[in-house]
Amino acid sequence: MAAKIGLAEGGGGEATARLIKEVFWSQFKNPELLKGNDAAVLDWGPGKLAVTTDSFVVTPWQFSGGDIGRLAVAGTVNDLTMMGAEPKALTVSFIIEEGFEEDSLKQVTRSMAETAVEAGVSIVAGDTKVVGRGAADGIFINTTGIGQLRAEIDLSGDKAQPGDVVMITGTIGDHGGAVLLARGELGISAQLVSDVAPLNRILLPLVGNFNNGIHVMRDPTRGGLAVTLNEIARQSKVSIRLDETQIPILPEVQGITELLGLDPLYLANEGKAIIIARPELAPDIIERLSREKLGAKAAIIGVVGLENPGLVSIRSQSGGERILPMGSGELLPRIC
Amino acid sequence: MAAKIGLAEGGGGEATARLIKEVFWSQFKNPELLKGNDAAVLDWGPGKLAVTTDSFVVTPWQFSGGDIGRLAVAGTVNDLTMMGAEPKALTVSFIIEEGFEEDSLKQVTRSMAETAVEAGVSIVAGDTKVVGRGAADGIFINTTGIGQLRAEIDLSGDKAQPGDVVMITGTIGDHGGAVLLARGELGISAQLVSDVAPLNRILLPLVGNFNNGIHVMRDPTRGGLAVTLNEIARQSKVSIRLDETQIPILPEVQGITELLGLDPLYLANEGKAIIIARPELAPDIIERLSREKLGAKAAIIGVVGLENPGLVSIRSQSGGERILPMGSGELLPRIC
Repeated sequence: MAAKIGLAEGGGGEATARLIKEVFWSQFKNPELLKGNDAAVLDWGPGKLAVTTDSFVVTPWQFSGGDIGRLAVAGTVNDLTMMGAEPKALTVSFIIEEGFEEDSLKQVTRSMAETAVEAGVSIVAGDTKVVGRGAADGIFINTTGIGQLRAEIDLSGDKAQPGDVVMITGTIGDHGGAVLLARGELGISAQLVSDVAPLNRILLPLVGNFNNGIHVMRDPTRGGLAVTLNEIARQSKVSIRLDETQIPILPEVQGITELLGLDPLYLANEGKAIIIARPELAPDIIERLSREKLGAKAAIIGVVGLENPGLVSIRSQSGGERILPMGSGELLPRIC
Repeated sequence: MAAKIGLAEGGGGEATARLIKEVFWSQFKNPELLKGNDAAVLDWGPGKLAVTTDSFVVTPWQFSGGDIGRLAVAGTVNDLTMMGAEPKALTVSFIIEEGFEEDSLKQVTRSMAETAVEAGVSIVAGDTKVVGRGAADGIFINTTGIGQLRAEIDLSGDKAQPGDVVMITGTIGDHGGAVLLARGELGISAQLVSDVAPLNRILLPLVGNFNNGIHVMRDPTRGGLAVTLNEIARQSKVSIRLDETQIPILPEVQGITELLGLDPLYLANEGKAIIIARPELAPDIIERLSREKLGAKAAIIGVVGLENPGLVSIRSQSGGERILPMGSGELLPRIC
């Protein structure tokens, strides 16, 4: 019988010590982590520091293109990236339901370790709690990230300016669609892979290059493109007008959402960024993104205006214009 | 009917925006948090940085002397303190079960805000997830802390040296006992209050004062004094001998543990620290601690030796000596 995680693994004694060594330290080989102290110590130069936290509760914990481990590392790396910060260190904290397979936990940690290498970030501290059967659903992960921010970089959701253009780094809704399919409740089979990926290696060079011309970067995760743009429109007190014909969507995502009556604009993405920048820079930004696999389908999808501050609207193929409300956000719980 | 948290509050849309403003921002008033960006930005001086993470799953979520919110802030502040680091910034992340009372959430956040003020630390970033009924048990909180560490401070679990003395800052087992009582399954009523408290204000001045003479500080949380000392004995490759007559225990804790056949040495503490230091400093350390409410019952409880590296033993009142094994740790799940 496959080994399962028991309450003893969360008790702090021998069983916990074994789990930490065999499952976590074997993957996350950071020397500070391996010291087993109450906190990790990092050398830090002067300057600004960015910090972000996220808990992940996605169900099922694995899906086409990734799992909760890759999602946790990429999600936190991306939140730092959106501020223009270089991801340096991650902490990881697990809440595990008694009975979760140890082999599954190993897969999740391997996936975290691999994604951390891909992003060039170190996992420096961790924690594990085990709760009884029925007190959690499988596995939840918190990742908190610390990044280094050069003094001259100042991206923020309140910096979109009238005349700016709105770009997206690729197709929307892939992650939401892939998780929906993985739930297996739809009676649909389709080839759709989550876009979950760390974006720091393609986006930070752009920030370095077009520093003062890129005003906002944000990843449209929970709530998708529509909710994230609503947040930015409110923060910056501007309107945003999208052109539906320019928004890249995979036919598989289009198909699933039509079948289910969902709007892909509200589906979560986990490897995409919205970039809002001065219009004269847009062609160059798109050209550079297009050279990268993670930015191959980057596109200009809208413009920032002054009228109706806080409002996001979209012009459809037929030329009609409708408001994209903030709404109730992601209608699908536990997508990330 | 009292308002309850629903799945919409975790969806990222209007309901989430309301919850964040009304419940979280109203308590955690940090300007970086209120910007609502993907990561908080902090100015940071040169030097070392300490980082620690912990998830809290205590049940019930409130108990005599505190609640999960106070526990989360104090626990993370204390982990930074144990490394000699000044707690600067905390991130908080909630996983909430659908149906949890909004008033309870408000109590928890108020308690976090008050404890953060007590410790002088800022809550700079956060996240909220809501999962369906039965997918979590009420509320889980992750707190991750960042502290600033002066270059000359170098505390670590592997620095205990033969000849050092072992001190504890007060009575043991109070938190474990209080949570046990709060579960109401024991048929016992007793006056016992959790010791949960941030210790940075009493311990960091000691570290500054006795810098090179204090070798190890660690808070005996999950697994209690016995497991924490076993960890230190292994990390430092030393033996530790305790004198049972010197270990401060409240009569209420003694009573509860005798009744239940538990060992108070394995019960969790949330406002206590083990301090291991050069013997000549011990009287002065105890004297300084004794002046503080949080250190009033501080005591010298043992010595560090060379024989049997990794072993912890205890001499009882009758003079007999027994080994204190690492064991399976905290026998009571979800104590923190």
